[in-house]
Amino acid sequence: MAAAVFDKLALIGAGLIGSSIARAAAETGAAAEISVWDRDPVVREAADELGLGQVTPDLQGAVTGADCVILCVPVGAIGAVTQAVADDLAPGAILTDVGSVKTVAASAMAEHAPGAIHVIPGHPIAGTEASGPAAGFASLFKGAWHILTPLASETEKPGHRDAVKTLTAFWERLGARVETMAAERHDRVLAITSHLPHLIAFNIVSTAYDMERIDEQEVVKYSAGGFRDFTRIAASDPTMWRDVFLTNKAAVLETLGRFSEDLAALQRAIRWDDGDMLYEAFSRARGIRQAIIDAGMDRSEVNFGRDQRPDADLNSPIDPNRDA
Amino acid sequence: MAAAVFDKLALIGAGLIGSSIARAAAETGAAAEISVWDRDPVVREAADELGLGQVTPDLQGAVTGADCVILCVPVGAIGAVTQAVADDLAPGAILTDVGSVKTVAASAMAEHAPGAIHVIPGHPIAGTEASGPAAGFASLFKGAWHILTPLASETEKPGHRDAVKTLTAFWERLGARVETMAAERHDRVLAITSHLPHLIAFNIVSTAYDMERIDEQEVVKYSAGGFRDFTRIAASDPTMWRDVFLTNKAAVLETLGRFSEDLAALQRAIRWDDGDMLYEAFSRARGIRQAIIDAGMDRSEVNFGRDQRPDADLNSPIDPNRDA
Repeated sequence: MAAAVFDKLALIGAGLIGSSIARAAAETGAAAEISVWDRDPVVREAADELGLGQVTPDLQGAVTGADCVILCVPVGAIGAVTQAVADDLAPGAILTDVGSVKTVAASAMAEHAPGAIHVIPGHPIAGTEASGPAAGFASLFKGAWHILTPLASETEKPGHRDAVKTLTAFWERLGARVETMAAERHDRVLAITSHLPHLIAFNIVSTAYDMERIDEQEVVKYSAGGFRDFTRIAASDPTMWRDVFLTNKAAVLETLGRFSEDLAALQRAIRWDDGDMLYEAFSRARGIRQAIIDAGMDRSEVNFGRDQRPDADLNSPIDPNRDA
Repeated sequence: MAAAVFDKLALIGAGLIGSSIARAAAETGAAAEISVWDRDPVVREAADELGLGQVTPDLQGAVTGADCVILCVPVGAIGAVTQAVADDLAPGAILTDVGSVKTVAASAMAEHAPGAIHVIPGHPIAGTEASGPAAGFASLFKGAWHILTPLASETEKPGHRDAVKTLTAFWERLGARVETMAAERHDRVLAITSHLPHLIAFNIVSTAYDMERIDEQEVVKYSAGGFRDFTRIAASDPTMWRDVFLTNKAAVLETLGRFSEDLAALQRAIRWDDGDMLYEAFSRARGIRQAIIDAGMDRSEVNFGRDQRPDADLNSPIDPNRDA
């Protein structure tokens, strides 16, 4: 196995992403030693049982002596956590994160981290709708993009360029492909490729829930018509997503404004029987789908490769009293 | 093999659905003989090569002597096709369809079909984003719901109740679970479970396409953040979907109005930093996802069971000149 990239890696937060990093770093030998902290005792116990690393309730102890600290907490918690560990970070250590909004994450870390620390904000474009330490897996980052948004204010620090190279090597060891871009650009791009899709998905599920003339069971029963595709990402962690929308407000509102305008145009075409406009709008979507498949960012199998009712007994009726 | 349900089944239209019925009926022995017509000579040739049945360019000949005719054409074409075959339908034959909007499909068939025919509108809640005769497969309907919307005006015809039972037996032989409901109810339920999700998916892809400050390649590259889930259903047949929106106008506009109101409320919560409202809205979506999985209408595997870049070479860069 190649030499470890980091002697001691500290993972702050042991949810889906933190626990996946722990597994991947152990499997690939990217870190010689891994310390894990989480604010939730239940999560810590699970992380310990899963053997994710040296799990500790002592936040400061977790980061002490670490040459890399990765904050795997919701974006809204990054500032407070950085402040809490600031005095214990080793000089020259890398402080990075996995938050979905990079402008806010960057300033939250830069504001509280001491000058001798290399702050390098990051974001893995990987994840699933599941949450918690048991949901993580070592291959989560394989083939996924990892975006670093280095700070202009950090580049004058001695060794900063090497620190970015080292962090890049770490993510590449985990199987990711690393890109760098400005934090503002990241937040605009992700507003359309991730944040708006999640908002729309959350919203359509809410709308369905509230249709009083259609009972919820019918929505579930006939969800194969398209609705079920949306429910997957709508099952994502609500705390994480609340923070995303509150911290990437400007880009999300801008993107949402465009989406609503475009939707109003389709609505008008439906109302006025403009079939040509609808046909044209629907046709060009196929090209983007093909490009996503060609780029290896999704499976080419139709229907995501799933068949009908793969998990359930065909003859068992839906329980109308099931807990939703 | 059990006795055939129909002696001669006529499939009018050999796209994804028509060709899947042909395969499933042959595989299960649900029809002793299958005739296939399509208006497109290229589709007919493909259907012939695929061995889907007795393929003919003669629409009237295809239906002659058939005890069941299934119209597998876009909703907007159902009236014209019914009119074209009306004189050649065998007395007592079943005329059904697979259209996504049942009120319009029902009246289009009922208007043109002779009195001696049993008109029984139907809709399989099954499909993929692929189109054409090669895209079909025999198991498409296995475990899927099939909705019949029998007409009150037909119930007085002698033998109509038996005709509905026979058609039910046919779809069950193909593996489907059959439900009956009023056409109006079907159209309202499908507006939220299928039509609105498709409209939203088409729209977000258009919005992404038009973001001039973000190039299309970035949208493709970072689509794993959520966007790619939407592109699957946005790749569906544009002609079929144009007809759906033009014919289910009232229910779609009503549902879309609710969706837009709900989205405006989320937008307002983002603008005014109402984290509690966002958290609450996002939380309840998880319950619906779980109910869909419990009902066997989707896979329980996270991320639809897919991994990253399953199809592509990790080391090959995305071709910036690829044809999108």
